[in-house]
Amino acid sequence: MNPVNLDGKLIAQVIKNEIKSLIENKFSDEVKPGLVAILVNDNPASRIYLNSKTKSCAEVGIYSKIIELPVSTSESELIDLIKQLNENDKFHGILVQQPLPPHINTNRINEIISPEKDVDGFNPINMGKLLIGDECFVPCTPAGILELISRYGIAVDGKHCVIIGRSNIVGKPLAALLIQKSKRANATVTICHSGTKNVENFTRSADILVTAMGFPMFLKENMVKENSVVIDVGINRIEDRTSAKGYKIVGDVDFENVSKKVSYITPVPGGVGPMTIAMLLKNTVEAAMKISGIKNV
Amino acid sequence: MNPVNLDGKLIAQVIKNEIKSLIENKFSDEVKPGLVAILVNDNPASRIYLNSKTKSCAEVGIYSKIIELPVSTSESELIDLIKQLNENDKFHGILVQQPLPPHINTNRINEIISPEKDVDGFNPINMGKLLIGDECFVPCTPAGILELISRYGIAVDGKHCVIIGRSNIVGKPLAALLIQKSKRANATVTICHSGTKNVENFTRSADILVTAMGFPMFLKENMVKENSVVIDVGINRIEDRTSAKGYKIVGDVDFENVSKKVSYITPVPGGVGPMTIAMLLKNTVEAAMKISGIKNV
Repeated sequence: MNPVNLDGKLIAQVIKNEIKSLIENKFSDEVKPGLVAILVNDNPASRIYLNSKTKSCAEVGIYSKIIELPVSTSESELIDLIKQLNENDKFHGILVQQPLPPHINTNRINEIISPEKDVDGFNPINMGKLLIGDECFVPCTPAGILELISRYGIAVDGKHCVIIGRSNIVGKPLAALLIQKSKRANATVTICHSGTKNVENFTRSADILVTAMGFPMFLKENMVKENSVVIDVGINRIEDRTSAKGYKIVGDVDFENVSKKVSYITPVPGGVGPMTIAMLLKNTVEAAMKISGIKNV
Repeated sequence: MNPVNLDGKLIAQVIKNEIKSLIENKFSDEVKPGLVAILVNDNPASRIYLNSKTKSCAEVGIYSKIIELPVSTSESELIDLIKQLNENDKFHGILVQQPLPPHINTNRINEIISPEKDVDGFNPINMGKLLIGDECFVPCTPAGILELISRYGIAVDGKHCVIIGRSNIVGKPLAALLIQKSKRANATVTICHSGTKNVENFTRSADILVTAMGFPMFLKENMVKENSVVIDVGINRIEDRTSAKGYKIVGDVDFENVSKKVSYITPVPGGVGPMTIAMLLKNTVEAAMKISGIKNV
């Protein structure tokens, strides 16, 4: 039997439509939600990714701007810019595209972004509130994963969720989100990573398995439980001579074989990726509403 | 074969001696590390616990003071007091004894304590840094557990650690600490809690098992793996007619039977409890050194 494809592209479109209506109802042309994105590298992939974020902003009615800085930008120059943007009324959300060049301390930059405009949820205050279970901006990929499975009616409560990967943008905040005592979460969570021995012992016991390693087609059929849910956060380029570009994008999951065994699975591309962008829009609108004192009732 | 008792009382004394020497070497009588503790309830257990903290401060040469406030104290009065203490040069560490009365929001109070004086590590900034893997004050019980097992030469790296309990003061920060990519941590971590189904399936696979539920003698012999390490954070009062007080203190572990099967175990009392206090002293001295610009070289 074929599994259900968790169609992130479709669900993201549904959410974008909801956000578009919300903006039309709650905002005027004078006061529009605004997002500013800072790019400090000449990585073409980062630029493509940022362009798709600003394109989505335009679709729903969020004003957005990309500020491109040369790789030689110093940490203090970047900090000064962020401080100005913290005070800029036009922007309710600020994001700094990662990765940053090695001479800039990413943690230090995340601390500078005003917690009220921290739509990526990477400021330690928001990370700490997430862990504590307090209201905060949830990082977009973990938020997108939870939103996607919840829109498909998959309950997390009481399930064993196994996360492979402990990055600060996916694995750690996702674990923090899923262990909370709330109806949407309340999962038993195992965090696996490069230091985990016999990872297949953990993945085979997962009701919901999330791979976020960046290791093409790592997860094989014999590593998953029958009828489980598999969420693939990986975005990996591999050579593909049959394609005009010479490469194709695959996830961390051997989709073709794993999909025969599980009940739900996300495709790559078109799974978690679009959901991440949808959550960025949602966080930006929420930031704008809070800052502008607009209530969502 | 009997297991090794992880003697927290003994190790805490060793650490206190180290701290005492450090204070004698690095501080003068004019500039001493100072800790202020605020108690906002008339719970005798809280007072006893605080008294043991200040007694330990005196032993090592930390100046300390307990400020007792009536249960009727308002949240804003408490906030004002903390703000004053944030500015008070005499105190390098501020702790607010939990639990607080229900009309005071604990999360809000934790946010007010200056991150530089937050020796309990409960301010969301410190919690977030802990999750991210940045330098911060680590909450005392998780720090004490890691210190205790590491002083006994038990490696955590690559082990499966199962934590039962998701409190903001033990379970969550301990998980955040143990998953970090560092020599002292790097464990595969599972977080179980009241929403976990068939908890014994998880506990039986644990190399290191930490119980922090507050459920007397919950963990039975058939729930642990042979030769595993068991850390009992529980402190529960149960009736004991043979005792003059009419009660005795037990942990979350059925010590008598579990201890026959495992390789290391913490007693209750005398295991994690004294380590928690030792870590509070350590955090206070570190806060004092940072604030006073004293280097530990």
